[in-house]
Amino acid sequence: MPAHNAFYGQSGGVTSVINASAAGVIQTARNYPDHINKVYVGENGILGALTENLIDSSLESDEDIEALKHTPSGAFGSCRYKLKTLEEHKREYERLIEVFKAHDIRYFFYNGGGDSQDTAHKVSQLSESMNYPVTCIGVPKTIDNDLPFTDCSPGFASVAKYVAVSILEASLDVASMSATSTKVFVMEVMGRHAGWIAAAAALASSDDHDLGPDIILLPEVEFKEQEFLDKVNATIERKGHCCVVVSEGVKRPDGKFLSDSGVRDAFGHAQLGGVAPVVADIVKQADGHKCHWAVCDYLQRAARHIAAATDVEHAYALGKAAVEFAVQGENAIMPTIVRTSDNPYQWEIGKAPLAEVANVEEMMPSDFISTDGFFITPECRKYLQPLIMGESYPPYVNGLPAYITLKKQKVPKLTQAFEI
Amino acid sequence: MPAHNAFYGQSGGVTSVINASAAGVIQTARNYPDHINKVYVGENGILGALTENLIDSSLESDEDIEALKHTPSGAFGSCRYKLKTLEEHKREYERLIEVFKAHDIRYFFYNGGGDSQDTAHKVSQLSESMNYPVTCIGVPKTIDNDLPFTDCSPGFASVAKYVAVSILEASLDVASMSATSTKVFVMEVMGRHAGWIAAAAALASSDDHDLGPDIILLPEVEFKEQEFLDKVNATIERKGHCCVVVSEGVKRPDGKFLSDSGVRDAFGHAQLGGVAPVVADIVKQADGHKCHWAVCDYLQRAARHIAAATDVEHAYALGKAAVEFAVQGENAIMPTIVRTSDNPYQWEIGKAPLAEVANVEEMMPSDFISTDGFFITPECRKYLQPLIMGESYPPYVNGLPAYITLKKQKVPKLTQAFEI
Repeated sequence: MPAHNAFYGQSGGVTSVINASAAGVIQTARNYPDHINKVYVGENGILGALTENLIDSSLESDEDIEALKHTPSGAFGSCRYKLKTLEEHKREYERLIEVFKAHDIRYFFYNGGGDSQDTAHKVSQLSESMNYPVTCIGVPKTIDNDLPFTDCSPGFASVAKYVAVSILEASLDVASMSATSTKVFVMEVMGRHAGWIAAAAALASSDDHDLGPDIILLPEVEFKEQEFLDKVNATIERKGHCCVVVSEGVKRPDGKFLSDSGVRDAFGHAQLGGVAPVVADIVKQADGHKCHWAVCDYLQRAARHIAAATDVEHAYALGKAAVEFAVQGENAIMPTIVRTSDNPYQWEIGKAPLAEVANVEEMMPSDFISTDGFFITPECRKYLQPLIMGESYPPYVNGLPAYITLKKQKVPKLTQAFEI
Repeated sequence: MPAHNAFYGQSGGVTSVINASAAGVIQTARNYPDHINKVYVGENGILGALTENLIDSSLESDEDIEALKHTPSGAFGSCRYKLKTLEEHKREYERLIEVFKAHDIRYFFYNGGGDSQDTAHKVSQLSESMNYPVTCIGVPKTIDNDLPFTDCSPGFASVAKYVAVSILEASLDVASMSATSTKVFVMEVMGRHAGWIAAAAALASSDDHDLGPDIILLPEVEFKEQEFLDKVNATIERKGHCCVVVSEGVKRPDGKFLSDSGVRDAFGHAQLGGVAPVVADIVKQADGHKCHWAVCDYLQRAARHIAAATDVEHAYALGKAAVEFAVQGENAIMPTIVRTSDNPYQWEIGKAPLAEVANVEEMMPSDFISTDGFFITPECRKYLQPLIMGESYPPYVNGLPAYITLKKQKVPKLTQAFEI
């Protein structure tokens, strides 16, 4: 069997470890020269395939590919672009086949979350419906941790670690200031639909101390203002201050996002996002407590400097497994993490059909949320704790992480331009 | 000469390394039993002296005191409380003497920024004006880096490192998303009067890559909206996206804080702080670019997990020097960092009179700011670069930093209660 080229693409919101998956794909493909010739990487994911902007990964040095393991974000560019059905996007699918044929691409590795796995699934249908042979494997990734079948999604655990470390540190700060200054600290984290990230902040709490978050506001639990304020005040009464972690996706009982506070600027424009200032304002207006608030935004998902070693290992292993599955003749699947033991944490690689992965959002189970809705349960902690284990520090030069910037040399174009 | 007890207090906004100074004071004092008996630490700084809430540091284990070197925030509690003049606060000064006498306290070490050095200076005047012999040494600390005489202030360098690492990582994120999503990222950092922290973000930029901040908004430079928007657009035109770091203290030409945007909630209340959302909103309203923003707030000054090794060394050395100066008979001074070489960075301990330190704010020199006002100069970089050198990781347990919580056992009270 002659070797063919492979396409790899990064898709959706990036993470601090998605490049480790890229390294897993590229390095492993180099071990199978009988099957895979070169790995062409789409500039900005599937858009790179459609526009024939292909980066030749074989022109990057071994050292630079290795450095992807400790470099956050999408080194090849990512995209938010969703392929529609074969009927609706017939032109796009035909274009993909045109580019794949021109560059002898018979392997398609797509690294992303639910929407991206849906894209991978649709591309896998090319084989049958449009009679073009392409082996299609999804590589999971999403900080939202909402992919089904897998124990967790690469990217999530490092955000979890960042969030837990950050609220631990901030809670020490507030504890030392609260006698004469700040009483309430509010930290906003990502998670529009699922509360996994906010939940992970609870790992900063412990039976050994009274630090970390006192209240966690999850998108799964509707925000009841008076119950929240009562809990804030009870916490201040008990320990002198209160730390709150709030998910960006928290909603009021009427279904509106809490961040949509009705605040308007002088011109009547809706104020730009941010639920932490809204929560801080609710506390301040109701009870006059001095508040501070932080919004982590991209910092949390880019924070490779505090990535979880487990997460980096998962990400690399899944990229590696994707290639191994492909050369073994598997198709239309996504490798997964299968947990075999909580403590010590042990895991192995499994697989799930793309058809069943696509567009399924795995929410927090209700037994992971405390009865008052303001914290997680021991069961949830048992799930989360192993994921943040281990530090995986990048090398430093001049006091800063030595993140790699690739050369990203393009494969010469062989087709006519295509307008998206 | 018989030994006497010492008072140590933490004051003002805390940092990720102020506890390293505490360790320097406490460990060094233990080396001079002929001069210093016990170190009593004020619970919440000077308030602990006034209320006779003194923590007996001799009851903490050697291991726990050692662990202060890697624990952020003020382990003994800090305060925002400023002693007024001897005339205005006569009652408070008499109370201090009462407590000092009762506990045989003849050394006073006060760890803080400009206001706190002013307090230290006033306490030093007790000796003469109220005839009570107390050796008084300030220990510098402030993330604002605005103390005079010293090369830098402990706490600042670690914030500088946090800010530079964070914007480096976020800029990688935005670069990978900008093809189809976010074009502008705005990160807010502390610094109400001086722009040192925002300036430090520039260390993430390099001749080797096009990452880090593209625009830095300093409180020293008045915010000119159209010039700013032009620069944002030119940057997007050139590289596809733009990263902005903004200091909380940036003002409009009319002298109003940019964060005071005139935004009111449904009840007409002024919206709670935050300049990053205001800057993002300005960009979005003017040019429609998709923006993301982050507000670091306490996370930046509590981030011991990414502290600069240089900073930790400075903080410890200054605590140590304070005690050594005291036992050598110095009084009413603050030990300082004296830079003797930029590259390699070399420094030694100096000293400055408290009378000249108190209430002086060291601003960014104008030759540290680029001519367009949106960046720093090479001169500024030369100053800042050595400060963020070195990583000083805390030990980790269960995936989280093993920060210490002290026992904080109180010295039995010997005086009547005092109302503040």
